[in-house]
Amino acid sequence: MKDQFYNYIQQLQDTITSKLESIDGKAKFREDHWKRPEGGGGRTRVIENGNVFEKGGVNISAVHGKLPDSMQSYFGVEDADFFACGLSLVIHPKNPMVPTVHANWRYFEMYPSAAIRQAQLDTLRTGSEKKIIDQWFGGGQDLTPYYLFEEDAKHFHQICKNACDKHNPDFYPNYKTRCDEYFYNAHRNEARGIGGLFFDYCKASDGMSMENWYNFVTEVGNSFLEAYVPIVEKRKDLPYTKEQRDWQEIRRGRYVEFNLVHDKGTLFGLKTNGRIESILMSLPPHVQWVYDHHPEVGSEEEKLIKVLQNPREWV
Amino acid sequence: MKDQFYNYIQQLQDTITSKLESIDGKAKFREDHWKRPEGGGGRTRVIENGNVFEKGGVNISAVHGKLPDSMQSYFGVEDADFFACGLSLVIHPKNPMVPTVHANWRYFEMYPSAAIRQAQLDTLRTGSEKKIIDQWFGGGQDLTPYYLFEEDAKHFHQICKNACDKHNPDFYPNYKTRCDEYFYNAHRNEARGIGGLFFDYCKASDGMSMENWYNFVTEVGNSFLEAYVPIVEKRKDLPYTKEQRDWQEIRRGRYVEFNLVHDKGTLFGLKTNGRIESILMSLPPHVQWVYDHHPEVGSEEEKLIKVLQNPREWV
Repeated sequence: MKDQFYNYIQQLQDTITSKLESIDGKAKFREDHWKRPEGGGGRTRVIENGNVFEKGGVNISAVHGKLPDSMQSYFGVEDADFFACGLSLVIHPKNPMVPTVHANWRYFEMYPSAAIRQAQLDTLRTGSEKKIIDQWFGGGQDLTPYYLFEEDAKHFHQICKNACDKHNPDFYPNYKTRCDEYFYNAHRNEARGIGGLFFDYCKASDGMSMENWYNFVTEVGNSFLEAYVPIVEKRKDLPYTKEQRDWQEIRRGRYVEFNLVHDKGTLFGLKTNGRIESILMSLPPHVQWVYDHHPEVGSEEEKLIKVLQNPREWV
Repeated sequence: MKDQFYNYIQQLQDTITSKLESIDGKAKFREDHWKRPEGGGGRTRVIENGNVFEKGGVNISAVHGKLPDSMQSYFGVEDADFFACGLSLVIHPKNPMVPTVHANWRYFEMYPSAAIRQAQLDTLRTGSEKKIIDQWFGGGQDLTPYYLFEEDAKHFHQICKNACDKHNPDFYPNYKTRCDEYFYNAHRNEARGIGGLFFDYCKASDGMSMENWYNFVTEVGNSFLEAYVPIVEKRKDLPYTKEQRDWQEIRRGRYVEFNLVHDKGTLFGLKTNGRIESILMSLPPHVQWVYDHHPEVGSEEEKLIKVLQNPREWV
């Protein structure tokens, strides 16, 4: 399964980056390969200063080794080895009428630690191959607009729902709700964006084998470009003012707050000694913090905030 | 002690804000009073878009009530009430040749919780007045330059040392080292700035009564303007290029990373339901994140980084 999924995200990275480059028409993704000292590494692709995309990263990584102490308590295990691979992307467009998008699809395996395997070998003579203790998929995709075009929100969610419905009619409502709950800036009492899908710990169970989960997760991965690209095409050439650009930069500050204060993915990267520039590629290029900023009553900016304070059903 | 110290920080806030306003010559501090639902509140003063100061806050607060669950484990107590007051300031100048400065002076008291006091009353009839379980001072001041003028670093540290030496010759070396350790972006392997002083849990002990600690902490507080203002005066009118301004904004990104990922003061504010705009006034006005940015070999920018990677003795 880990080889199958890693092959998939390698191809998906190619598909997504070549499509985004063709839309941008100017900037190209720069590619960096990196190694994690404790095991594994990744292939980071970052685009900057394009016609359409001001900054974006589409990264894959596969890391393995001893589960860091800080993650052991998180997963409630005492001593284990792990393997994790995934694709993470964050795209910050230049035009404030085009939403920022984030997506991630990941696979995780946990094994008895080398020490435990040795102990088993010593006492039970049961062999020392790595047995999987636990394995699961996680991921999702979500949209963060600076100006709310309801038809864009509906389109994004409709594509998410279509991908889910092929597998289970409960998936979309469940994972839509979890997305609203997860991407929430509790200290601001508002959602980061207008949501999408978020799922985690997707494990083999009665109805779903790991192969079924693989099919679901890749279905969502395959839907990404269909969910995002039409919105980019429709909004990328809209005119905008300096005030609208300022608003985008202020809202990007909320994005930074979420990623650095609340996001478990960022935390996981920092705690597993991931490559810092690959983890923090998610941070926007130009950002503002203005003291006690509030949009004008009745403005488009206020309309967005109200939706972020009270997540809506879009389909 | 709490009244004595709260009076002191009220006056210090006035002294500092009026001096900074007179240097700026254009912008004035805006004042906001806020209340904490669980007890206490604060007086926030923020300056924005000045001639010299692009954004800055000089805030005082005094909060009290039940110690939040999340702080109980942090302090290693089971159930307690608390009182905390302090002055926090962060100043982000416009000109990249002028360093950002941060300072904080605080006082903390802990008491048996209302429930415990009631239990004591029921069983022991010892009275129900709030007995202090524990009390301490904390604080410090530190400088974050974007371009390193060694004479400025020496001046700032010399003033810090002078204030310390009046109380104990060990204070400056100890608190200078703790400052370097605390304001450290571990995920970047570099210090936030060139340091200053950091002290915490300053409690009554053999050599120092709480009154002695009060005298020390207010000595440091009184030294702040002498430490910072001459540097501002000397650098505020230096010319700078767009590239130097970009560098400042990129480095401000590291400031944001420290404050949101590592800073216990920010965390304390968020966990005790402090006023979010007063806590996050510390975030800089305009910030950039550039993927995998490295200064040129031999440049002034690289010279700064090398000092941040290997904190120096300045006096």
